[in-house]
Amino acid sequence: MSTSIFYHAGCPVCISAEHDIINLVGQENVEIVHLAKQASRIADAEKAGVQSVPALVTPTGNALHINFGASMADVKASL
Amino acid sequence: MSTSIFYHAGCPVCISAEHDIINLVGQENVEIVHLAKQASRIADAEKAGVQSVPALVTPTGNALHINFGASMADVKASL
Repeated sequence: MSTSIFYHAGCPVCISAEHDIINLVGQENVEIVHLAKQASRIADAEKAGVQSVPALVTPTGNALHINFGASMADVKASL
Repeated sequence: MSTSIFYHAGCPVCISAEHDIINLVGQENVEIVHLAKQASRIADAEKAGVQSVPALVTPTGNALHINFGASMADVKASL
């Protein structure tokens, strides 16, 4: 299986979803990106269609927005 | 791995997310429930915390709302 990318920003909603996704998909199948700590990845996330976090970008390139933690605008405003 | 339950209501957003989830989690690990066809399962979904579809209820009982297709109120109003 190819790797998915899970984008989050450290909020409680994100951390809870992160644990669920790792359990479901398997830790080896998902890269975790903390946008508040890795701000250089924000452009990649937006290019992949991420509009809010937490979000999972699948190996096929679809952005799945999971629950709602924060909008990308909020993430950028917090940096 | 225990089984997750993926609730949807047949809308295009739901079907797209369904394919992604099956690819990520594995078909054998997820039960698919079409609420517009299996209205008797709506109470279970609401009890599990599902507020909109598509949603995935994990083996640990967390409801992950994926993107946004329709609120449960819309699903019930459509029956």
